[in-house]
Amino acid sequence: MKIIALSGSLRKDSFNRKLVDALPGLAPAGMEIEKVEIGNLPLYNQDLEGALPAEVQAFKAKIEAADGVIFVTPEFNRSFSGVLKNAIDWGSRPWGKNSWGGKRTITMGVSIGKIGTALAQAHLKDILLYLGMRVFGQPEVYIGPAGEVFDAQGALTSEPTKELLKNALAALAQQ
Amino acid sequence: MKIIALSGSLRKDSFNRKLVDALPGLAPAGMEIEKVEIGNLPLYNQDLEGALPAEVQAFKAKIEAADGVIFVTPEFNRSFSGVLKNAIDWGSRPWGKNSWGGKRTITMGVSIGKIGTALAQAHLKDILLYLGMRVFGQPEVYIGPAGEVFDAQGALTSEPTKELLKNALAALAQQ
Amino acid sequence: MKIIALSGSLRKDSFNRKLVDALPGLAPAGMEIEKVEIGNLPLYNQDLEGALPAEVQAFKAKIEAADGVIFVTPEFNRSFSGVLKNAIDWGSRPWGKNSWGGKRTITMGVSIGKIGTALAQAHLKDILLYLGMRVFGQPEVYIGPAGEVFDAQGALTSEPTKELLKNALAALAQQ
Amino acid sequence: MKIIALSGSLRKDSFNRKLVDALPGLAPAGMEIEKVEIGNLPLYNQDLEGALPAEVQAFKAKIEAADGVIFVTPEFNRSFSGVLKNAIDWGSRPWGKNSWGGKRTITMGVSIGKIGTALAQAHLKDILLYLGMRVFGQPEVYIGPAGEVFDAQGALTSEPTKELLKNALAALAQQ
Repeated sequence: MKIIALSGSLRKDSFNRKLVDALPGLAPAGMEIEKVEIGNLPLYNQDLEGALPAEVQAFKAKIEAADGVIFVTPEFNRSFSGVLKNAIDWGSRPWGKNSWGGKRTITMGVSIGKIGTALAQAHLKDILLYLGMRVFGQPEVYIGPAGEVFDAQGALTSEPTKELLKNALAALAQQ
Repeated sequence: MKIIALSGSLRKDSFNRKLVDALPGLAPAGMEIEKVEIGNLPLYNQDLEGALPAEVQAFKAKIEAADGVIFVTPEFNRSFSGVLKNAIDWGSRPWGKNSWGGKRTITMGVSIGKIGTALAQAHLKDILLYLGMRVFGQPEVYIGPAGEVFDAQGALTSEPTKELLKNALAALAQQ
Repeated sequence: MKIIALSGSLRKDSFNRKLVDALPGLAPAGMEIEKVEIGNLPLYNQDLEGALPAEVQAFKAKIEAADGVIFVTPEFNRSFSGVLKNAIDWGSRPWGKNSWGGKRTITMGVSIGKIGTALAQAHLKDILLYLGMRVFGQPEVYIGPAGEVFDAQGALTSEPTKELLKNALAALAQQ
Repeated sequence: MKIIALSGSLRKDSFNRKLVDALPGLAPAGMEIEKVEIGNLPLYNQDLEGALPAEVQAFKAKIEAADGVIFVTPEFNRSFSGVLKNAIDWGSRPWGKNSWGGKRTITMGVSIGKIGTALAQAHLKDILLYLGMRVFGQPEVYIGPAGEVFDAQGALTSEPTKELLKNALAALAQQ
């Protein structure tokens, strides 16, 4: 099973990027997780759809070749990042060529505070359902405060968090 | 009263851009509405905050010089556009320099279908409240289907829609 | 396949109740749809869980005997009705005895206006995912304005709406 | 300034009820906070509007006599309680007699876990905006885990939480 994972944060030292990096080591047997970058996509503009930019074509090909998608989102201003939504918008276009449809999916995220990006993920799931993705709700993966689960070198060291992630990836495998 | 208006769609012939263009003609006496472009902003990346890009500085200056903001959003995949959220994220940063705080605001949007971007605006209002903006809920401005309110040349011709917009802008003036 | 259908409106002549009544005639072969009443449940109070009221026990038994649930919700004040949420809260309790988990589900609703209870259903789906139900997003069933799909006697007469409902029930059967 | 406070939980020993009880002692000078019960209201049914039940009439009179409303909500299944929404639905009816309109308001809540009812409050604010209430977003009042802010006797003992509540009530006074 081929799964792609997207980070909604572009910051080099982002905890959410570190979370993406930790996922392959926690995946069940038979699940391959590939990080896909979304920072090179242009801002979405329907006028560009006539000649789809090469970066967008490559991105849509990555989605279409995958069995599922992990959305790892920061919470910016109580929602997902604009960067992540921009990638989602491109992946859904042009009309009739939605690359997301039918893929299995899970959302997760880590915050500095206690909420663990729960509000961002609520908005995100509304969208993923609309896109025809196979969304499930349990377990929820709200991680935070970041300082309690990552060590000073940025390694994920919290055993309960690792267990949660293993369970979440196992649930993704079984959808 | 100086108000800026943002379109969450970059498409040249977008109905939401046409809606922005129609607003100055419907504003109450004393309200000046300026369209501000958001298509030139880079994708948000906290690593860029050390030397804020010139386009971001100019955008934040526009917000700070205004008394209020009109967010005109399309509904892409049952939420606002990534483009619009990207602009909101930049305007809120860096930490402690949120340009949106305290500004009066209203959301609106037009859709091809009947929903009038209501779901996008619901997500949007969650964010605007968090940002400390002065959000109000009535009247709601859900416009659609677009084909019934704009004519073939893209002019807003629906009298009930014009009345709704006049009432909404008057309410914005009184917040 | 046994499916139960709940109306979030208690009004005798509610369009949403009429919608529930129309469903059995549109169901695919092999799907049996039973209307379950929720207007006799007490207001949820955890203190009552020690001796679960008989109405609640009967309601939970109905859920547990079903393969799936159709939530038909009005939109009251831009969300689902309190009546419907009260039934959902009871069905999820007591702790560890969530009756909803694992059931297939779809949401739908009819409004006097154009929005078709889309905002109510967005809130509702957040909850159903949390409850561990099998939620899917397409087709969306936003019906309205009611006056264009029901005749003066309250019969569902719109052919496109009937087609949408048939497709939605077929999708429910295949989840 | 007369403010009423509602608890969305009916459980006698609910932390949210204890939160309501703590509010008067934290209010700024000139603000009087009265707890109003909502557990005696019938389930909302429009058919009852012809002869409004006495409990509903009394409840609407309490709202109308107040300058503002504090909604204290538990988070049940990632939203507000059905009990609370039932009270809101009654307060908004009958058509044209919305008792909530124009009142200042704030939402708050306490959870056993870390999220502090943030998801419930997000849904709630969507509704309060629609009702024409004066909603503000900062400070947010997400309290939890409950065990860290209340002592074994149910007294609110956390000084940072008391400070947050004082600031929130002061902000309510200034809306």
